[in-house]
Amino acid sequence: MTINIEEICTFSVDITYQDTDIAGVVYFANYLNYAERGRSKLLKSLFGKIKFEGEQNWAVRSTSINYFLPTKIDDTLVVKTSIKELKKASLVFLHEMFVGENLVAVNEIHLLSIGADLRPTRISNEIYEKLLEIYNTTERN
Amino acid sequence: MTINIEEICTFSVDITYQDTDIAGVVYFANYLNYAERGRSKLLKSLFGKIKFEGEQNWAVRSTSINYFLPTKIDDTLVVKTSIKELKKASLVFLHEMFVGENLVAVNEIHLLSIGADLRPTRISNEIYEKLLEIYNTTERN
Amino acid sequence: MTINIEEICTFSVDITYQDTDIAGVVYFANYLNYAERGRSKLLKSLFGKIKFEGEQNWAVRSTSINYFLPTKIDDTLVVKTSIKELKKASLVFLHEMFVGENLVAVNEIHLLSIGADLRPTRISNEIYEKLLEIYNTTERN
Amino acid sequence: MTINIEEICTFSVDITYQDTDIAGVVYFANYLNYAERGRSKLLKSLFGKIKFEGEQNWAVRSTSINYFLPTKIDDTLVVKTSIKELKKASLVFLHEMFVGENLVAVNEIHLLSIGADLRPTRISNEIYEKLLEIYNTTERN
Repeated sequence: MTINIEEICTFSVDITYQDTDIAGVVYFANYLNYAERGRSKLLKSLFGKIKFEGEQNWAVRSTSINYFLPTKIDDTLVVKTSIKELKKASLVFLHEMFVGENLVAVNEIHLLSIGADLRPTRISNEIYEKLLEIYNTTERN
Repeated sequence: MTINIEEICTFSVDITYQDTDIAGVVYFANYLNYAERGRSKLLKSLFGKIKFEGEQNWAVRSTSINYFLPTKIDDTLVVKTSIKELKKASLVFLHEMFVGENLVAVNEIHLLSIGADLRPTRISNEIYEKLLEIYNTTERN
Repeated sequence: MTINIEEICTFSVDITYQDTDIAGVVYFANYLNYAERGRSKLLKSLFGKIKFEGEQNWAVRSTSINYFLPTKIDDTLVVKTSIKELKKASLVFLHEMFVGENLVAVNEIHLLSIGADLRPTRISNEIYEKLLEIYNTTERN
Repeated sequence: MTINIEEICTFSVDITYQDTDIAGVVYFANYLNYAERGRSKLLKSLFGKIKFEGEQNWAVRSTSINYFLPTKIDDTLVVKTSIKELKKASLVFLHEMFVGENLVAVNEIHLLSIGADLRPTRISNEIYEKLLEIYNTTERN
């Protein structure tokens, strides 16, 4: 099977009432959820599932979001997911979120690989290799 | 433009961590949100937007959900939206939610048409006609 | 220890941006979450925890909400929880939600008692007795 | 009226099913919502409301969270809110979140003061003075 990396790294959501708040635009915390859907789409495309059994789990160490423009109801928000950093036992996902041509928000999330005992552990080889393929497609300035 | 009613009445979501709770399945309240995305997709397909300016607004009078099976992480949940009841100033949307062939939950929501003054008002003719087209495609047992 | 039933059946939340949507009032689905916090406060007060280990679990069979008035930002929403129906293997919680004197929404939720195997099972005696005490304080018209 | 700063800067939430995910602990994105409730409690205590009419509004420029320990169901999470930075037209809130003595997560959020036209503007004097009082109570290492 050939994987279309562009396709699996792109997730879009149509903004509805549930996404907004009284200010009339998307509530700031919700971007973490769109990013998680983007990241999950990528992981599911690579591995067939997002919840691994047994030894390979992830813990969130930190996350950050920068906001550039509001997102409005009826907008289509597009999440572009890439891997900014890939180490033996951790990685950083980058989620750039667009409405049309405009970058509206950027989320980074730093994940640690943990084992069934919840302690840090190396990313398994099979998983690392596939993540590396995504990492290598990420443009770095 | 020809509208594919089957298409615009079908919304699907891949279940990720954000959808689940400690019981390991989708948290019961979240189904209202999937249904809203399904309903919004239909409305946007019919009218080009879900948030109307000015006179045509909606208020939720009641909603109910019946649960038949749990939905698990990595499942794809498919929301089938139809109109169960259409009156001059109100309507009932029916959202049947499936994983594969299995019906997992059914949500009904009763909406009132309200004007800019937030008081009940007849659904505008143009909107009513399009909703009627959807209503007429709904199978009734 | 004496339990103040009035106290443990009352939960309040101050409405903030996260609760609202672009319509300027509380998003309709969020009331399920306030009700769950009210129910959880009651269960934790009775049993010291809401998540039981092992044999006593709950599954949601159905839920419904009726809406009477909008809730606004800066309102304090008060959830009054009672038990409307108590059977050997199921119960119905009633959550009446107020802003000041005004009833804004009512949620009912029908829970089934299930065992570790996720099959229906009788509510354990110890738990049933305490729920019965709450049930007996509920006014029925 | 005397304000108890310790009191108005402390918000607590009992963790329930809605807060958790399939990993059995609080879902990482939810901490932004607890922090917003803590910040809102402080603002409402200072100003009587969180949604100002007219000229004084806020836009989120960025936010970040660092995670140290998981939060479990039945835990009580306590959010301690302080002001880390206060400028003429912006401020940074710091939200330290504890379970008992343990620091589980820290959220920072950078807000810009904006006017009715959504453009950056100085924080109004009256509001600035009260925020300064909170700022001055924050310990800085």
